[in-house]
Amino acid sequence: MLSKAVVKYIKSLQVKKYRNQHQAFVVEGAKSVLELLQSDFEVQHLFVTQDFLREHTAILAKGFKYEVVTEEELVKAGTFSSNNAALAVAHMRQLPPLHVSPSELVIALDDIRDPGNLGTIIRIADWYGIQQVVCSENCADFYNPKVISATMGSFTRVNVYYLNLPAWLQQHTDKYKIYGAALNGENLHRMQLKPEGIVVLGNEANGIRPEVAHQVNRLIKIPAFGKAESLNVATATAIIIDNFRRNG
Amino acid sequence: MLSKAVVKYIKSLQVKKYRNQHQAFVVEGAKSVLELLQSDFEVQHLFVTQDFLREHTAILAKGFKYEVVTEEELVKAGTFSSNNAALAVAHMRQLPPLHVSPSELVIALDDIRDPGNLGTIIRIADWYGIQQVVCSENCADFYNPKVISATMGSFTRVNVYYLNLPAWLQQHTDKYKIYGAALNGENLHRMQLKPEGIVVLGNEANGIRPEVAHQVNRLIKIPAFGKAESLNVATATAIIIDNFRRNG
Repeated sequence: MLSKAVVKYIKSLQVKKYRNQHQAFVVEGAKSVLELLQSDFEVQHLFVTQDFLREHTAILAKGFKYEVVTEEELVKAGTFSSNNAALAVAHMRQLPPLHVSPSELVIALDDIRDPGNLGTIIRIADWYGIQQVVCSENCADFYNPKVISATMGSFTRVNVYYLNLPAWLQQHTDKYKIYGAALNGENLHRMQLKPEGIVVLGNEANGIRPEVAHQVNRLIKIPAFGKAESLNVATATAIIIDNFRRNG
Repeated sequence: MLSKAVVKYIKSLQVKKYRNQHQAFVVEGAKSVLELLQSDFEVQHLFVTQDFLREHTAILAKGFKYEVVTEEELVKAGTFSSNNAALAVAHMRQLPPLHVSPSELVIALDDIRDPGNLGTIIRIADWYGIQQVVCSENCADFYNPKVISATMGSFTRVNVYYLNLPAWLQQHTDKYKIYGAALNGENLHRMQLKPEGIVVLGNEANGIRPEVAHQVNRLIKIPAFGKAESLNVATATAIIIDNFRRNG
């Protein structure tokens, strides 16, 4: 059974301040917890249902300490409206220093506020083999439970860095191509894109800030064929990265 | 001021049964309400804040009956956690008969349950100039407030039809190319695709049902370059349709 103190601790991790204080975060649901157990994140607490235990005995037998609880307890402690599988608390990990190789494609996010969008973008990065995502400091927090959940396990494979984006881009503007998504950019379908450089996506409502746009070498746009005024930022990221990956 | 009876009526429209009974649905937020007012949907009720009224006097002066209310009242009546703009109730409209021209691209959805995904797919359809989306009967309801909201106004331009999908596809299998998204399909980047035919996307967790897959002529997949096991269905739709639109 989950004690009151543990439930309180898990609940506190919904708040960034307490996540940072404890250097810990919450992972919920079968897919995400399974990915966590197969990653190099250190697991602090693990709560599983009888059903999850039965299905994944082999993985759990690899030395994980766990406690069997009910679905109701998982829902009570976590953020999901239903969870018939598992919930874990893991330690944050130290990222390797950020280094962009000249033959690498990196996603840079300027002021992406919605946790679902950030999580979906991390999942897209993982699909397309992008290992580093750079975020302006005001983006949603990587360890927010909604971000972790939307990545569908990809949080274990993509390194996300928070930094002063205009300053960081300025350091890279000489040696790297910096692309920025904008409605007045060049038509993506007409460009010969190599999967190298930095692709900047901007805020859901306002796009890329002027101080960030100032560091962009080349504005690109997804051509429109109908009347929608814009696309969701995660949707736009997916389409743009797919265009970069067409040529290798 | 919003009367108790009106709030109760608006709230009832969150449920499909009452939407169908009243043939009415709810539209929330500045962007969606503005698109509604410029569409051929008939507006039954319109509630606006003082700020929205001030900014959009010209549109509201075109003969709309409206009532000025507070942000708190909009939040109380609607589904948004904040709404400083407007909320409307509109009549459902009669769709023109479904007819697919041989030079047209149509999206078909098999068992898409998440309202956010359906709404995002409608927005993507609108961006790429796709006017008809066909849904299996168990898909999320077009008039669900979360669907309407995720379309960001595109619900006014895309016609969404609910029907027996396997039977409908069977009627089209001789004359139309029917593509289906599947992890074992052909690599989309290696195909010469013309933007004609029907593209089938399947359920978030289970993909396309066997009885639907049976009607598909050609399975297609988005090539993976990393380790994510799958993409969100709205993300996948966007990438696939973009690939169809590259050649015109």
